[in-house]
Amino acid sequence: MEIDIKKPILDRNDRLAQDNRALFDEKGVFVLDLMASPGAGKTSTILATIDALRDRYNIAVIEGDIASKVDAEKISAHGIPAVQINTGGACHLESDMIQRAIAALDMDALDLIIIENVGNLVCPTEFNLGEHAKVMILSVPEGHDKPYKYPNIFQIAEAVILNKYDTLSVFDFNEEEFRSVVTSLNHEAPVFAISATKGEGVDAWAEWLTDRIEALKSGS
Amino acid sequence: MEIDIKKPILDRNDRLAQDNRALFDEKGVFVLDLMASPGAGKTSTILATIDALRDRYNIAVIEGDIASKVDAEKISAHGIPAVQINTGGACHLESDMIQRAIAALDMDALDLIIIENVGNLVCPTEFNLGEHAKVMILSVPEGHDKPYKYPNIFQIAEAVILNKYDTLSVFDFNEEEFRSVVTSLNHEAPVFAISATKGEGVDAWAEWLTDRIEALKSGS
Repeated sequence: MEIDIKKPILDRNDRLAQDNRALFDEKGVFVLDLMASPGAGKTSTILATIDALRDRYNIAVIEGDIASKVDAEKISAHGIPAVQINTGGACHLESDMIQRAIAALDMDALDLIIIENVGNLVCPTEFNLGEHAKVMILSVPEGHDKPYKYPNIFQIAEAVILNKYDTLSVFDFNEEEFRSVVTSLNHEAPVFAISATKGEGVDAWAEWLTDRIEALKSGS
Repeated sequence: MEIDIKKPILDRNDRLAQDNRALFDEKGVFVLDLMASPGAGKTSTILATIDALRDRYNIAVIEGDIASKVDAEKISAHGIPAVQINTGGACHLESDMIQRAIAALDMDALDLIIIENVGNLVCPTEFNLGEHAKVMILSVPEGHDKPYKYPNIFQIAEAVILNKYDTLSVFDFNEEEFRSVVTSLNHEAPVFAISATKGEGVDAWAEWLTDRIEALKSGS
C-alpha cells in the first residue's frame, strides 16, 4: 500500500482557495500571485507596478517570506498597505495563510491585491491561493536555460516578466532562445521585458494587468 | 490528534543518508552538496572547481534538476563523469536518489563527488544526502538582503560562495552588510567572492575544499 501524503494537503488547500476566490470575486478585487526565484526582483516589480497603477486603483500587497519583514516595510514605505506572512520555513504560501492575511485588509476599499510568494520556482506552482492569475518573473542574470529546468512554472504562468533586462549586455543571455522555449511550453503567456528598478518596459505589463482587472470588474 | 507527515520522510531519508555516508567514508570519497537559487551559477562554479582541482583529484558530478539534462551535458563535455537526476517535480534531492546515482559511478576511482542540488534556497536544507559538507552559493544579482529572508541555508552552510562578483558595480549590492549578516547567522562559514565564469577568486575556495578532502583522506 502506498499513502499519498501530498493529496490531502493539496485538497484542503484547494478547498480554502475556493473560499478565498469567492470572497475576491464578491468584493471585485483582482488578486495576482507573483512567483520567482529569490532575488529575481519580485518586490521591485511590485513597486514599479504600484507606481504605474496607483492613480487608477487601490492596491494592497501580501508579502510571503520564510523570515523577516524587509519586503513589507519597503511596500509600506511606498504608502501601500502591506501584510507580511512569515512561513517559518515553508517554501511556499498556502490558502490558509492568505485567508489570515486578507482579514487584516479592507477588502471593500481594494481593486488589486498583489501576493509576493516565497522565492522558489518549484513549490508555489502546486498551491492555488484563490488568485485570478499566477504570473512569474525570471531575471536575466538567472540565465536563458531556466525554462528547460523548471518547465512547470513557465507552463502555468499567465504572463512571464523578464526582469533586469537592462543587464542583458552583462550576461550571456540568449533572449531569442528564451522566448522560443517559453512559447513552446506555453503558447498563451506574453513575455514582458522590464527593468523594474528603472521603470523601463513596465507600461506594457501594467496594461496587461489593467485589462485583467477591468475584465473582472465588468464581470467578463 | 495531529499527524506529522514530514517526520517519517525525514527519518527515512536520514537513515539512507547514513548508509551513503558510510560508503563515502569507506571509499575515501569526499562528497559536497552544493545548494543555491536557480541561476546563481552552480554549474559554472562546479566547472571552475573542476578546473582548479582536476590535476590533483578524480572528480564526478551528480546533477539534480526538476527536468532536462543540460547541466550533466555541460559537465560531460568537460570530460568529467556526470549523472543526471531528474526529480520529476520534487524541489530537492533525497538520499535514495543519491544512492541510485552513485551506483552508476566508479567509487573506487574517485576522490571527490560534487552534488548539484535543485535550484532552491529552502527545501534542500532539510535533507541530508550523506555529504561531508553543504556549501551554498549566493550570486550578486540576487541582492544582499537574502540572508534575512532565507536564514536557514546560511546557518547550515559550511562555506558561502558569493558568485558573479564581477557584476558588483552593476547591482545595488552592499557587500559589507551581506558579510556582516552572514557572520551573525554563521560564525564559522568563510565567504568566498568569486566570478565562476571568469575563474576569478576560485583559488581560495579550491584551497578550502582541498583542505577538507585531505582531512578526510588522513582520517582526521
